Amino acid sequence: MFDIQHYLAKKRKRFEQELDTLMLSADGDFADHVAAMRYSLFIGGKRVRPILCLAAGECISPDPALEERLLPVGCALECIHTYSLIHDDLPAMDNDDLRRGHPTNHKKFGEAGAILAGDGLLTFAFDLLSDPRFTGLSDASRLQIIHTIAGAAGSLGMVGGQALDMKSEGRKISFEDLQTIHRSKTGALITASILSGAIGAGGSRSQLDALRVYGDNVGLAFQIVDDLLDVTSTTEELGKTAGSDVEHDKVTYPAFFGIEKTRQMAGQAVQASLDALSDFTDRAGPLRSLAQYIVDRTK
Amino acid sequence: MFDIQHYLAKKRKRFEQELDTLMLSADGDFADHVAAMRYSLFIGGKRVRPILCLAAGECISPDPALEERLLPVGCALECIHTYSLIHDDLPAMDNDDLRRGHPTNHKKFGEAGAILAGDGLLTFAFDLLSDPRFTGLSDASRLQIIHTIAGAAGSLGMVGGQALDMKSEGRKISFEDLQTIHRSKTGALITASILSGAIGAGGSRSQLDALRVYGDNVGLAFQIVDDLLDVTSTTEELGKTAGSDVEHDKVTYPAFFGIEKTRQMAGQAVQASLDALSDFTDRAGPLRSLAQYIVDRTK
Repeated sequence: MFDIQHYLAKKRKRFEQELDTLMLSADGDFADHVAAMRYSLFIGGKRVRPILCLAAGECISPDPALEERLLPVGCALECIHTYSLIHDDLPAMDNDDLRRGHPTNHKKFGEAGAILAGDGLLTFAFDLLSDPRFTGLSDASRLQIIHTIAGAAGSLGMVGGQALDMKSEGRKISFEDLQTIHRSKTGALITASILSGAIGAGGSRSQLDALRVYGDNVGLAFQIVDDLLDVTSTTEELGKTAGSDVEHDKVTYPAFFGIEKTRQMAGQAVQASLDALSDFTDRAGPLRSLAQYIVDRTK
Repeated sequence: MFDIQHYLAKKRKRFEQELDTLMLSADGDFADHVAAMRYSLFIGGKRVRPILCLAAGECISPDPALEERLLPVGCALECIHTYSLIHDDLPAMDNDDLRRGHPTNHKKFGEAGAILAGDGLLTFAFDLLSDPRFTGLSDASRLQIIHTIAGAAGSLGMVGGQALDMKSEGRKISFEDLQTIHRSKTGALITASILSGAIGAGGSRSQLDALRVYGDNVGLAFQIVDDLLDVTSTTEELGKTAGSDVEHDKVTYPAFFGIEKTRQMAGQAVQASLDALSDFTDRAGPLRSLAQYIVDRTK
């Protein structure tokens, strides 16, 4: 039986070590700014995107050197995810005071400091992805990874999704609009994380297609579960302000369907993600367990 | 005699056409967000960074196909420059109402909209630089260009410089600190623009070294002149709020040295930039004229 908790803990630690090594050091002229970036990078986080990237790579190729090669890619994904949380928490956006059980970046470093910490993390991701020190991946693969991630993180993906989400606050939107927000705001970068790992491992076109379906469904499950947790958890359990969606009058899955039906829908999305992996070998074990793990968070 | 005005007008128009073609279109789900990005991209701008990129490439190689190849690189640089202006103008930063004679992005689209427009433009720059449609440059050159630009735009460059600039407001800082702010906030991306063009044109190590010296001095001249114009121009001439530096109690060259001595220092920086080009042929004509043009803006 594959031990997902052990796998997650081990990979999480590996990525955190690497992030600490690769991230700029908080000394010299830019010490305060770098400290603000490091603060949000290291106050917690499950490192889901880097781990999905690695697990997707490992399901394509058994090469033991692959983990080493994908480390900077995973770190770049975590930098982008962290920047998005910092900007989403800003007073002009969701105006949240708590994230991962700690004060949000702007509470700690001021609004300008938080905007710049986010800008710095986003830019640093592309610095890492193009860093000539990392020679393990071919130039062609690296460009394809950069393009995949930039597309998913940008205006037709995560950033655009946040813009739609802001626009939807306090307004009645359709279920279709809610799906568009989820797909772009959360789903796109999750799918890109998975595809990046698969590209780095030399995945074929049909393997990438299958993993895209897996990623889209895992991303959907992930967002549904996030919506659920916002309703069903306490602030302490969540590490961020619980009930924030309701407070901001945000449209969510539970608001549309109620809690029970939403739980079922999360389960269906997980099943669809597992179905997409039917042609893969046992090496897809971590990906399969990760999908299940996401929905188990609601129980 | 090389006609710099004609050259600038022609290249500016070419880059603006290309920006309009390459930029996402403001329809579909993300229409409002894309409209906010397009607003700041197209309300003006001298397109100095794309033109420096192209002129640097042209001074290395006479290949007529080079312009076509460097167009996406120049457009990416302009996206990054525009994002930096949007974020610098935010209420939490310089809180400016006017830019290029028009309302700033947050005045027009709200604070959240402006933060996201900036985030979208920054991300789109890396989308462009890695876009598989642009096959004119080798994969190795493209990665080197991405790394050069990400380094210059990031936390040890433009973003870090803005963080230092914010920190210096209302405080007495040394001339050395002022130079660090200028070099990182403005100089780094200007030099990166020049190096990107040279890398795309296949420049040698020694050519890149010479162009780095040229770029650093042009960047310095550019920033000194910006400081001067803030003191000596009206808001109407400037298209942004004149006297904004004094109002924000910012340390500037004129504040340190007075207007006359500052003017001389701009002239010296231009001379140093021209000296760096001494080994280049007549094809460096545009670069030489651009350096002179920058300081002539003060007269």
